[in-house]
Amino acid sequence: MLKWWSTVKRVTGKALEMGRSDPRKIIFSAKTGLALTLLSFLIFLKEPFKDMSLYCVWAILTVVVVFEFSIGATLSKSLNGGLGTLLAGALSLGMAELSTLAGKWEQLIIIICIFIVGFSATYTKLYPSFKPYEYGFRVFLITYCFITVSGYQTGEFVDTAINRFVLIALGAAVSLVVNICIYPIWAGEDLHNLVIKNFMDLATSLEGVVSSYLHCVEYKKVPSKILTYQAAEDPIYNGYRSVVESTSKEDTLMGFAVWEPPHGHYKMHKYPWKNYVKLSGSLRHCAFMVMAMHGCILSEIQAPAEKRQVFRGELQRVGCEGAKVLRELGNKVQKMEKLDREDLLDEVHDAAEELQKKIDKKSYLLVNSESWEIGNRPIEDTGEEGEILEHKSRSEAVLDLRTVEVAHSWDGNLTLGNNHVVPATDASQNMSRKQTSLPAHIYHQKSNAEIKEGQQLKTFESASALSLTTFSSLLIEFVARLQNLVDSFEELGETANFSDPLEQREPLKSHGFWTRLFNCS
Amino acid sequence: MLKWWSTVKRVTGKALEMGRSDPRKIIFSAKTGLALTLLSFLIFLKEPFKDMSLYCVWAILTVVVVFEFSIGATLSKSLNGGLGTLLAGALSLGMAELSTLAGKWEQLIIIICIFIVGFSATYTKLYPSFKPYEYGFRVFLITYCFITVSGYQTGEFVDTAINRFVLIALGAAVSLVVNICIYPIWAGEDLHNLVIKNFMDLATSLEGVVSSYLHCVEYKKVPSKILTYQAAEDPIYNGYRSVVESTSKEDTLMGFAVWEPPHGHYKMHKYPWKNYVKLSGSLRHCAFMVMAMHGCILSEIQAPAEKRQVFRGELQRVGCEGAKVLRELGNKVQKMEKLDREDLLDEVHDAAEELQKKIDKKSYLLVNSESWEIGNRPIEDTGEEGEILEHKSRSEAVLDLRTVEVAHSWDGNLTLGNNHVVPATDASQNMSRKQTSLPAHIYHQKSNAEIKEGQQLKTFESASALSLTTFSSLLIEFVARLQNLVDSFEELGETANFSDPLEQREPLKSHGFWTRLFNCS
Repeated sequence: MLKWWSTVKRVTGKALEMGRSDPRKIIFSAKTGLALTLLSFLIFLKEPFKDMSLYCVWAILTVVVVFEFSIGATLSKSLNGGLGTLLAGALSLGMAELSTLAGKWEQLIIIICIFIVGFSATYTKLYPSFKPYEYGFRVFLITYCFITVSGYQTGEFVDTAINRFVLIALGAAVSLVVNICIYPIWAGEDLHNLVIKNFMDLATSLEGVVSSYLHCVEYKKVPSKILTYQAAEDPIYNGYRSVVESTSKEDTLMGFAVWEPPHGHYKMHKYPWKNYVKLSGSLRHCAFMVMAMHGCILSEIQAPAEKRQVFRGELQRVGCEGAKVLRELGNKVQKMEKLDREDLLDEVHDAAEELQKKIDKKSYLLVNSESWEIGNRPIEDTGEEGEILEHKSRSEAVLDLRTVEVAHSWDGNLTLGNNHVVPATDASQNMSRKQTSLPAHIYHQKSNAEIKEGQQLKTFESASALSLTTFSSLLIEFVARLQNLVDSFEELGETANFSDPLEQREPLKSHGFWTRLFNCS
Repeated sequence: MLKWWSTVKRVTGKALEMGRSDPRKIIFSAKTGLALTLLSFLIFLKEPFKDMSLYCVWAILTVVVVFEFSIGATLSKSLNGGLGTLLAGALSLGMAELSTLAGKWEQLIIIICIFIVGFSATYTKLYPSFKPYEYGFRVFLITYCFITVSGYQTGEFVDTAINRFVLIALGAAVSLVVNICIYPIWAGEDLHNLVIKNFMDLATSLEGVVSSYLHCVEYKKVPSKILTYQAAEDPIYNGYRSVVESTSKEDTLMGFAVWEPPHGHYKMHKYPWKNYVKLSGSLRHCAFMVMAMHGCILSEIQAPAEKRQVFRGELQRVGCEGAKVLRELGNKVQKMEKLDREDLLDEVHDAAEELQKKIDKKSYLLVNSESWEIGNRPIEDTGEEGEILEHKSRSEAVLDLRTVEVAHSWDGNLTLGNNHVVPATDASQNMSRKQTSLPAHIYHQKSNAEIKEGQQLKTFESASALSLTTFSSLLIEFVARLQNLVDSFEELGETANFSDPLEQREPLKSHGFWTRLFNCS
């Protein structure tokens, strides 16, 4: 009994929690209940509407089937269903005429027709372009069978067809009125917010990647969820993953949004929802670069901390400026404003140029000059000169590379150091790092000859420095892709008629509960 | 009339085309028609089954709603619906008892109950964990309303409930029998094939990326569809995109496959479909690297052709070996065999090591040594030695970098050259290349000081060489990620009890039509 009580408490708690986090769910449920209740009054109708009362279950059924979370979904289902019913009604009446003409073959004709209609409707709905109308095909088939069957039983085809259509139309109408007039939930607004969220998520992820890289965060064991691209708790990973994964959600929302009439801030016939999806696609194109940068952190081959510190300032600046651009664009989408300055990308481009120049100057840090063919060749050729050169190259290594090692506490920020390790949250969920290791395989398995191993160690060292190059190149490529993002944004701003911030400054705050409650439009 | 005829011909052509490309669609449609036909015989039933005949439309309705393409989907919908009907029946009977007790308040109680049940069922189904059971909740709500309403009208609650349940059960049973016994279409098999297809697609994409890179294929205008991550016709892009995009498809198929009984090659209770999805996730983790490599081709900053030629052999070998591993794994999944040798990755690891060594030796090609700080410092410090060094560094540039330029027709394969351009299929669909260009912005906009411009040009040159490093690093990281893929494969092989190729060699060809037609179970 006590256990039962605790279960009830737990379930109630979860239910309340869901309601608190998204009150629209409570409102939607109440709306569904209201629509059902309104229609169930039909059962108390007396003559001359007895017929309506008898078949009122069809109206209720329509509500259950048609009532969807967003207005767009409800509209598209209603119209689909309505069209399906109409066509099926017409077809079944025609078939009924035909079958009565057939006399004693009537039953056979009915059966054959059901097979043919069932086959054709199912086959047609499998055609890829008809996928959004799947529901309409189902309603068509149900109605056809229903009218044929009950018409055969009662002999009143036309009455049945009309009756059913009126009730379905009534159900759909009540659904629509209740759904639109009371606190409407628009798919378009959801899409709008999803795109904004994507911008913010990616900005967070980008900052996270750059700062983790500079703080030399290492995964001792890469969570197997990341290795198999499942949802994981890592905030950096989650940021870009949600951007990449939102494609299907966006497509669904767009499919509903196009059915919605102009409303709220989207007062425009044929609002360009497609451009929102396109903008999000451009954002995704940038997100892939962040993903690849995260790959540098996940990788076994890691650039040494002291080399990363050399480029610290530049990398950080590019990361910050990039995130700033993303946030700015996200805010602009939210406010539905055009860009107020044309030089949005200037800062980030400058930062990228700085980084590029720094790399250019310090690129000796990124390669392993000791193993150069051309560095060794002169020793055999010219003797002395070569020695000097080699000496130089050694001194480089000692002077430049090693001295930077004291930069561990370069600017006070770097407290994590080289060996910082993300704690494994759940050991059973993580694969051993070793399993994913290329160098472990390459560099240890064949350790027969000691000399070769030495060579391999150097190769590994060089590879680890190249990893820094890769990270920087990817960051620069990310910056390059921002232009495309801005272009997509400007296209959206044009087509969706975003306001010009220089002309007007009208606050676009979301309305209060009561304003929205009666916001019929 | 002629126009109408041509439309008919076109539609018929498309319909036949769809049937040819996937005959299962024809079979599925015929099965649906058959199930409907079987149940429509109910309408001709005479006493004592008159009741069955009157309400037989419910059975037909169930078929239309429940009959799905794959067995798993049909099963899960049937069971969901069955459970929903049972619960709703029980609840509505209880409520009916209650409302009759209420006497003159009966109608009010009915209305209130409909609201409460409608609200609760809708609210519960919005809880994320209940999402797969959405259909069950709908059926529950429909049944509850139906029994309450028609029970109130006829006064026969129990009869209505039982009648409806029997008919729904009959409809579901006929659907299942027809769907399973005649040419069954298993979601599990679709999932299996999807995973294999993903392996093959990625292998093709990898080979395409490497060979395009070596042939210096450039996009004069990057298709805007790629920039906004929409489906495009580019074969390289499509390969990895379909791998990345298949997540939701895999999840859906897995959701159905777990409902399916052991069958065909999957003779095992609780077959580990989850591991297929996991394997595909690991493959996706590799695909992201191929995607990033393709990014190097899409990028404005391009490594010069002559430098790419230096690493041609190594890059090509890694690409080929990588694709070979992917194909081998795909074939093993298809044959449901474990790996027959443990050294599957040896070749590709060797190739990657070769590439790494080559990079190590030739890394001077990847950086712009002229602008090194340390390269210039010795001139001021030590005079003569510095001059020698600088001379060396110049001669490097002349001797090594420029001479490779003649390697344009190095091995006869390179006919495309540096200026090969992918023709823009539809000009209006492509954004101008300039728009996405970082260097154009950075390096040309500020061309006030001539000297600065010279510097910038060098910076750009250096950046373009770094692009080659990035490509190689990404390729090596791709190879590193293969280990994780092999681990996932081995896990699948263990849990799914794949056959050991060393023990038995049983051909697992797909069966012929007639074998499958009667392949019940």
